[in-house]
Amino acid sequence: MQAFDDLMAFQRETEALAQVAGRLGWDQETMMPRGAADQRSDELAAMESVLHARRVAPQIGDWLAAIDPEALDPAGRAQLRDIRRSHARATRIPARLAAELARLISRAHVIWAEARADDDYNSFAPALAEIIALRQEEAQALSDGGDIYDALLEDYEPGAKGRDLEAMFTALRPRLVALREAVLARPSPQGVKGTFDEHGQMKLARLVARSFGYDFKRGRVDKAVHPFSSGSGDDVRITTRTAPLDPFGCLYSTIHEVGHASYEQNINPAYRLTPLGKGVSMGVHESQSRIYENQIGRSRAYTGWIYGKMRDTFGDFGIADEDAFYAAVNEVKNGYIRTEADEVQYNLHVLLRFDLERALIRGDLSVGDLEAAWNDRFKADFGYAVDKPSDGVLQDVHWSAGLFGYFPTYSLGNVYAGCLYQSLRDAVPGLDDQLAEGDTSGATDWLRDNLQHFGGLYEPREVITRACGGTAPSEGPLLDYLEEKFGGLYGL
Amino acid sequence: MQAFDDLMAFQRETEALAQVAGRLGWDQETMMPRGAADQRSDELAAMESVLHARRVAPQIGDWLAAIDPEALDPAGRAQLRDIRRSHARATRIPARLAAELARLISRAHVIWAEARADDDYNSFAPALAEIIALRQEEAQALSDGGDIYDALLEDYEPGAKGRDLEAMFTALRPRLVALREAVLARPSPQGVKGTFDEHGQMKLARLVARSFGYDFKRGRVDKAVHPFSSGSGDDVRITTRTAPLDPFGCLYSTIHEVGHASYEQNINPAYRLTPLGKGVSMGVHESQSRIYENQIGRSRAYTGWIYGKMRDTFGDFGIADEDAFYAAVNEVKNGYIRTEADEVQYNLHVLLRFDLERALIRGDLSVGDLEAAWNDRFKADFGYAVDKPSDGVLQDVHWSAGLFGYFPTYSLGNVYAGCLYQSLRDAVPGLDDQLAEGDTSGATDWLRDNLQHFGGLYEPREVITRACGGTAPSEGPLLDYLEEKFGGLYGL
Repeated sequence: MQAFDDLMAFQRETEALAQVAGRLGWDQETMMPRGAADQRSDELAAMESVLHARRVAPQIGDWLAAIDPEALDPAGRAQLRDIRRSHARATRIPARLAAELARLISRAHVIWAEARADDDYNSFAPALAEIIALRQEEAQALSDGGDIYDALLEDYEPGAKGRDLEAMFTALRPRLVALREAVLARPSPQGVKGTFDEHGQMKLARLVARSFGYDFKRGRVDKAVHPFSSGSGDDVRITTRTAPLDPFGCLYSTIHEVGHASYEQNINPAYRLTPLGKGVSMGVHESQSRIYENQIGRSRAYTGWIYGKMRDTFGDFGIADEDAFYAAVNEVKNGYIRTEADEVQYNLHVLLRFDLERALIRGDLSVGDLEAAWNDRFKADFGYAVDKPSDGVLQDVHWSAGLFGYFPTYSLGNVYAGCLYQSLRDAVPGLDDQLAEGDTSGATDWLRDNLQHFGGLYEPREVITRACGGTAPSEGPLLDYLEEKFGGLYGL
Repeated sequence: MQAFDDLMAFQRETEALAQVAGRLGWDQETMMPRGAADQRSDELAAMESVLHARRVAPQIGDWLAAIDPEALDPAGRAQLRDIRRSHARATRIPARLAAELARLISRAHVIWAEARADDDYNSFAPALAEIIALRQEEAQALSDGGDIYDALLEDYEPGAKGRDLEAMFTALRPRLVALREAVLARPSPQGVKGTFDEHGQMKLARLVARSFGYDFKRGRVDKAVHPFSSGSGDDVRITTRTAPLDPFGCLYSTIHEVGHASYEQNINPAYRLTPLGKGVSMGVHESQSRIYENQIGRSRAYTGWIYGKMRDTFGDFGIADEDAFYAAVNEVKNGYIRTEADEVQYNLHVLLRFDLERALIRGDLSVGDLEAAWNDRFKADFGYAVDKPSDGVLQDVHWSAGLFGYFPTYSLGNVYAGCLYQSLRDAVPGLDDQLAEGDTSGATDWLRDNLQHFGGLYEPREVITRACGGTAPSEGPLLDYLEEKFGGLYGL
């Protein structure tokens, strides 16, 4: 079918350009000279303008009209579904708005980084207000009525609705709060001692990445303020961070990003540079990063192996044995930072952001009131006050990057990870024995074959449901897993 | 004038995209994972296809027709001249050919790097033949008859002709050969002793870059196989290389690239992301890299300062004093590698390439005969045989990147540098006293104000002529400078 072939050739070029734009983002966070920020804004805006023009290209409409979906194989139909969706969305957003947003975001990133360094929310607030106004404008253009927040959510998690997430989070919250309170009433595990040099941490990060099957021939690891994974196909890069007193931050940031990156690296190569050649949604993406990081990476079995490698790298660091190490990497403690939060409290950080950003977008909360709203909510959920904006409202990069609707996918990903882990354990009975040897292949092969391989072939809920043998995702398995694990760790 | 404003807005976006494509090239040489090469080819081809489409966009023709050049200021007229030229060239090249060439070049680069590592010309030859065939096709499409090589040369040095360069090189050659023979008949200066750790070399490279006014806020230094400078405006990055036994390679590669990069950094900021916002030609670009590297960087005065910094960094490295150091960095010795060649022999390396590549493009030399032709010519010019392809025909990246017509601009740049240096010395009487303190500002300010600042405002020959107070460029000043300098150094 000529129309379909032409459409796919056009789309492949668009996906290649999207990869280029993504790599500019990577460069901005890792390599770009500081003084290049303004010029980079113009460069990103030019790329966005090209990408936008391609997404709304009239010939896409002609091709779509000429294609008979029934004549395609399932992958072809899935390509068509994705292209149709993104074309429909893109044609509703004015080119002027897309370019303006790209330029603003590049500028706002620098402002946010400075505001964060200065602990000064007010110097970031005007830029944030501009971003919200543009995203609201975008959401209005995309929305067919109802909650305009859903129009933004759709970009990250196709098919998800704010009210469904609200219901799920409402079910999560009381058991998480109860578990948190029970755990924090118990004595803390032993912590690490000494300092951990950057070189050793990065070496260990690379070792651990390799142990999870991350392919360094098609990727690389660098440092960045906020760790991230970037790119699809044969160029999937991750970043991590190091802190001299906390070796676990680097370790688990790395495993987390390796989860994202492995998803991208393991997608069916036939989908490379097509709409199906990338993770299907942020929620499913996060399910991979979290199951690598937590269910596998923080398991008793795998941490036993890591403990040996840590001893090899740093000598005695104040942890007596594998059990103490397992307890230490799973310590539940008070803290302000979402990315450093333990499994028990992580979702509480996310729910806070979900509620605040939904209120911002719906116009129920003003930017001027955001800092106070954050601090009030944090106090209510965690029982103590935020000490400074960089530990509170300025801690995350997301809003400065215009990412509204992204945060809830973190908790959705945790829920998915809970479901997948239950199925994985059933499917791979000798899992813990393998993990105890640092061999994650039983787990990563299962995830590759039952989920990662499919890329965008199935819709988010469908790919999780299929991997879980037909059971639709729910918050139950995650809660059961957390209560069992931390009940054991803290003797509840 | 609305048509001119619209044209410039369009052109700014094109220049921004060209910067993005250039940054992909930088990434490929410094950061890209090895296994990403195929995907990168697709990405570069997509960028090239976008850029090509913009260069041949029909609306450019409409705008150009609607603009009255007499209504513009001189900068506007110069913008128009450049846009008109590149539009005319681009419309003659089929989009298919441009994309094919981009894809081939990305692939050929990897093949060349492997062939070079394996010292196996034959494994590179087929890719080279493909490149030449495409470049010949391009040259035919661009040419209005006559020497098709000139059509390629025009891309790097607007206005230059192969026969004029041949005449200039014919005048250069006998005096260079005579100087070379006289110098090599004399005793060699004392060489360096010991090994020079990479960290120390890179630290010194950054110090020296700073001493030449390179702005690190708008640039960065990394390592690459073949040093280069990349980007314009506020993001101008350089690369260098280190070798444990030879600290001068890193040092002078760095100064060379700083010359290129400073030219880009010092262009009138009003021209940023416009056709005038980059160096006007490769020859003029090379005049800057060479005058930084040689006339200034290898002067008796500046080397005195460097010597102290070398001693601070490496301790005693076998050179007794400043005079011995000056002799060592200006040592004339046999060697295969163009980029390591001294001032006396460098142009002989270039003339060899110019003659061979011109013959290849004109169809007077086949790819199958190239290695033998290189080796014969080298033997004839230098008196000894090439020992292996990586020291001969495979040593340079250029041909694998499709750069035919580029090599002669190196020698043209040396000729320009000779002219500029004569004028600089007249203009800045206390130059040597400054350089002896590591202060290059007298030289670099003069070059900035009299040449670099103008970017693409004046045509190549014109900008040199203006900087030289109205005297048109010729090979005389370079030859006089070389004979005086090396006559003194070698007691001729």
